This record gives sequence, C-alpha cells and structure tokens, in this order.
Amino acid sequence: MSVPRWKILLEQAIESHSKSTVIQLASIDPTTPVPHVRSLIFRGFLSAQDNPARPLLLATTDVRTPKTAQMIANPHVQIAWWIDGSQEQYRIAGKAHVVPAPGHTLHKHFMHTIVPLGSANFDWEAKRIDVFNSMSPVMKASWCRPTPGSRLEGGEEEAKKWPVKIEEPKPGDEEGKRLWEMSLSHFALVVIEPDSVDYVELKPIPNRRTSFWPSKTSRGVWEEEALVP
Amino acid sequence: MSVPRWKILLEQAIESHSKSTVIQLASIDPTTPVPHVRSLIFRGFLSAQDNPARPLLLATTDVRTPKTAQMIANPHVQIAWWIDGSQEQYRIAGKAHVVPAPGHTLHKHFMHTIVPLGSANFDWEAKRIDVFNSMSPVMKASWCRPTPGSRLEGGEEEAKKWPVKIEEPKPGDEEGKRLWEMSLSHFALVVIEPDSVDYVELKPIPNRRTSFWPSKTSRGVWEEEALVP
Repeated sequence: MSVPRWKILLEQAIESHSKSTVIQLASIDPTTPVPHVRSLIFRGFLSAQDNPARPLLLATTDVRTPKTAQMIANPHVQIAWWIDGSQEQYRIAGKAHVVPAPGHTLHKHFMHTIVPLGSANFDWEAKRIDVFNSMSPVMKASWCRPTPGSRLEGGEEEAKKWPVKIEEPKPGDEEGKRLWEMSLSHFALVVIEPDSVDYVELKPIPNRRTSFWPSKTSRGVWEEEALVP
Repeated sequence: MSVPRWKILLEQAIESHSKSTVIQLASIDPTTPVPHVRSLIFRGFLSAQDNPARPLLLATTDVRTPKTAQMIANPHVQIAWWIDGSQEQYRIAGKAHVVPAPGHTLHKHFMHTIVPLGSANFDWEAKRIDVFNSMSPVMKASWCRPTPGSRLEGGEEEAKKWPVKIEEPKPGDEEGKRLWEMSLSHFALVVIEPDSVDYVELKPIPNRRTSFWPSKTSRGVWEEEALVP
C-alpha cells in the first residue's frame, strides 16, 4: 500500500515545471457519439489517508457546462497532460465524478462513495467549499455569468456588466452575498479516479514509455510494464 | 469565399507563440466506447487554391498506433489547442482522415476525396512523401521501432539498438535504404477537416468566446456568434 510511482513522477514534474497545470480532459457526448476535449486546470490530488495507492485528481468546473452531463452519462474520461519543460506526457484514463452543490438538480447523480476514498462518510460538500474558497476572486466571478456556451445576449455591452472579481462578502453586504452564493451554487468539483496511466518520456534517447495499472491480485499496488514508445 | 477568421486568428497566435504547436486530439474507441486523447504536433494547414474557406489541419502519426483504427471506425474527432502565451483556446471539431502508405492494409479505408480539397485528383501520396521528407531525422527513426504501445521485448538493452536518426540514404547504402523505406511505410498523415471552431479568449476582461461554423446557405462563408465564455 504505497503512493504509485507515476504519481511521484508526476508530482516531481509539476514541481519542476509549475506552470504545467493545464490538462486536456476528453469525454464522450453519448447522444452523438462524438468526442469532446477541453483544457482544465489541475487543482491537486486527493487520497484517503489509509489508501495512498489510489489518488484522485481534482479539477473544477461550472456545473452548467456540457461536460458535466457528458460525464454523468458516460463517466469514462481520459486526460492528456503534456509537460513541455520535461517533454513528458501522462495519459490518465479513468472515471469522472461530478460533485455539484447539494441543491443542484445534477446532485442526485453523485454517488457519494468514490471507491478509493473508501468511505461513504467523506464530506464532499466541505471539500467543495474548501476548494471554492481557494479559487481566485476572478475565477469566482466567472461562475456568475449567464450559462457558459449560451448566446451572448446584449453583446459586449452586457458582458461589461458581469462582475470581475468576487470577494467573500462582509456582513450586511447583501449584493456581495447574493453573488457569492450564486457562484458557489454553480461551482462543481470534477474528481477523476485513474484506472491506468500511460507515461511517455521524449527526453531520454531511446525514448521511454511505461504503462501503469492497479494490480488485480494485490490491493494497493500498481503494476507497470515498459512499452515501445 | 475567403480565409475563415478563426484561421487568421490561429495563425497569428502560432506566429506570436511559435512553440505552441502541441495539440491534443480526442477520438473514440468504438469498441468500448471510451474517449482517447493524446498530444500531437500541428504540421500546418492545407487548402485547395480555389477553396481557401475550408482549410484542413495536418498532423502525422505512426500508422500502427491505435488512433488510426479508432479514427477510421469513427472519424469524429476534436482538437483542444491551448495557446498559453496568449491565454487562448481553440477547440476544433471535425472529421479525421488517415492517409497511410498506398501498400498499407488500412489504405483501403482512405476515401481519396476530402471534400474541401474539391478533387479526387489531389496527389495524397506526393503530399505524404513531402511531409515525410520535412520531418527530422530523429522523428524518421521513431517510425522504425517495433509497434508503438507493444511490450518492450528485450528491455532497455534492446531499445538501445534502435536507430536514433535516419537520413536520406546515399546510393548503395542498402541498410539505410531499408530503414528509410520502413519508416516511410509506417508514416501516415492525419488530416482534420474542421466542422466547427470554439474560440475562447481569457486575456481580455470580460473574457470572450466565439463559435464558428460553415454557413449552410452561403458556400465558402463561416458564420460566427459571440457566446458566454
């Protein structure tokens, strides 16, 4: 039961190249079926203390974007994470869980139990609020716009009225409180549970490629195999 | 009939940020269905002289990678192109065409006519060879390895025997000729025919988002609409 080697490598890579937190997340629109992919910011790992072998990846989204419904209908996703400074690519395949506000209509699809955390008692709402609080005032303001991807009614003039930054409201600031709560109500966590990792290193000659997957026979152990790049 | 505005913007962005040619291409493995996404290098645009309104995007691959079969079974793909220097994202949805060597077993799936080029007479094999010739000796050597993603038989010792660079063989260099031809036989073009472009600009405040799609009523014209980012 230990931290997987791919996670140690990935953490080292992010530490050396701290700007490389932009990841590309692919999902499927099951109604078509057509693949979708967009850039997200990686917001950190999450592991149960007693299960460091199964780290989860955290990202965030506006719950009103199409990717939430896509991932609820088909939770299979893949992340491509290119770290330019080290010429490495991590491709992480796994299952996505969307954690919206408890009052949101999509919340009923959230299963509460994400297996690697090992407990139905994990306080996801506390985690959602923690991550929300850590977001910048500019990001918080972005969740108070009209629905992402909808037609921009009123054009740029209307857009100029959108809040630019949202800070925690002071007591008595009713408008600030309204915006803060609106932002929090649109804010959702995206939790990725990795099922396999494909790691390519283009710097060493010969290039290297390694596949990682959780052992089927030993709990808490990842197996790995060298592949042809 | 003119060059689409999104292409002009994208070319300007690449010119200003010349290292931003790494794109992420998502496809679907239809047997599962699970999304796949990996980083590729953008190798340029391709347009018919009489149809500048429908540019194609060029990338390359080893024909033996799983993405070729995926894109032949389901040609719908999406590209996420994050340009860090300008804080812009282009998401390009479209159809993929795989152009392998004429002798390759997958070549029968290639339709030869890619509509925007407007002609069944376009010499795709000449184009494939042109692009191959423009690749670096290191890239050319990469297509002489065993099948990508297969188990690394013999380990690192075996990998050290792989050719590191492949230059155009001199007359009489039989081994050089063999490697050159092997590399060319594994080399395939990936041609993306865009159907829509979603363009997000995170630098201006308020952020901007624009959707582009080919007009259904006016040939050679892209329509566009401002969206909520």
